[in-house]
Amino acid sequence: MALQLYELVGTDADRPFSPFCWRTRMALAHKGLQATSIPWRFTEKDAILQHKSEKVPVLLDGERAVSDSWTIANYLEDTYPDRPSLFGGAGGRAMGRMLNWWGDTVVLAGMFPFIVADIHGHLRPADQVYFRESREARFKKTLEEVSAGRDQGVAGFRKSLDPMRLTLKTQPFLGGDQPNYADYIVFGPFQWARAISEFQLLAPDDPVYAWRERLLDAFDGMARKSAGYAV
Amino acid sequence: MALQLYELVGTDADRPFSPFCWRTRMALAHKGLQATSIPWRFTEKDAILQHKSEKVPVLLDGERAVSDSWTIANYLEDTYPDRPSLFGGAGGRAMGRMLNWWGDTVVLAGMFPFIVADIHGHLRPADQVYFRESREARFKKTLEEVSAGRDQGVAGFRKSLDPMRLTLKTQPFLGGDQPNYADYIVFGPFQWARAISEFQLLAPDDPVYAWRERLLDAFDGMARKSAGYAV
Repeated sequence: MALQLYELVGTDADRPFSPFCWRTRMALAHKGLQATSIPWRFTEKDAILQHKSEKVPVLLDGERAVSDSWTIANYLEDTYPDRPSLFGGAGGRAMGRMLNWWGDTVVLAGMFPFIVADIHGHLRPADQVYFRESREARFKKTLEEVSAGRDQGVAGFRKSLDPMRLTLKTQPFLGGDQPNYADYIVFGPFQWARAISEFQLLAPDDPVYAWRERLLDAFDGMARKSAGYAV
Repeated sequence: MALQLYELVGTDADRPFSPFCWRTRMALAHKGLQATSIPWRFTEKDAILQHKSEKVPVLLDGERAVSDSWTIANYLEDTYPDRPSLFGGAGGRAMGRMLNWWGDTVVLAGMFPFIVADIHGHLRPADQVYFRESREARFKKTLEEVSAGRDQGVAGFRKSLDPMRLTLKTQPFLGGDQPNYADYIVFGPFQWARAISEFQLLAPDDPVYAWRERLLDAFDGMARKSAGYAV
């Protein structure tokens, strides 16, 4: 069995920065699975289209291709049931579905305006054109205009993390005493930001900051060792 | 084993309306446990102080008194492990802790301004004085001023339910194919509102509305049969 993972990168192949790919990368580590990284860039559509996907992550497990980070997490849980569980049972898998949407709509979408211009700065010229056009069409503003208000906007973003912050008062991880996929759901976006932006999303005295530190240390510091800024 | 539950009521003893008591009431039904209701009102502090609590719910299980809805859910799960699980495993219990905070800070706190004046209308005079003074001090406005903007504010509240709404696209309950404590966490606040307010928190074509209908039907229509408005 040879696992391979298509991971989004920009100018630097050692700086994977997709929030979704990081969820998968952490899930693989949790399962104790090694996967060879295949660096992939926004405009390399054909490379993954052969695996019937338009987005990364795409996981190749022998002859099989699995795409979408949530689908991959479920695939890993079902295919490697004897390895540490990502969900901690059926209840965790069901509730994880909602935490995944919370991670997408509150955490990922919440921080995106703050870091979108910084992403652009880490892309190759051809990818920059694609990225600017597609994202400016979405925001109906230039990338620079989108990011301009981030010093004011960050307070609202931090406040939106309250459900997580309050949880961390009584347990070190969203998954309980140890991290599980609930943590990787939220960590993915933070690692995305860390990889390409120096913007301070979290105050150092925030329990969420301490939680992020614990996940940067996880798996022998795997995420911390990956290229990124000290945020 | 005789179970008894202190439940918040107002003028009408058959209209229990605490969101936290409803979480517990649904959890008891999920476990197939009967509990005698002890109607309790805001100013009857002494009745529960004897059980070392200042708030309801308080569950009496023989000689034992357990307070706080989250603590009670964990107590029921641990004390009655052979009955249907509230969390579906250790992962669900850990993630449920975060969903409980989401339920408190987003759902419950989100709808509170819209229904606070209607709560007042369902209280006895002595409780009205207590309720108005304590809640107006918290909001720094009159109850009527707090509720005045609800027709405009409800759009933002509905939007905040997106993580739940998106989850319901692929599963009928937050707990998966069947409801579990994740659902009761969020249903409690909705049943609180339904018991005392005619305000339309949800549009009829909202998947969250359909989900609420399913929970009103659960346990032989237990929540629907309790006094409330058609919302």
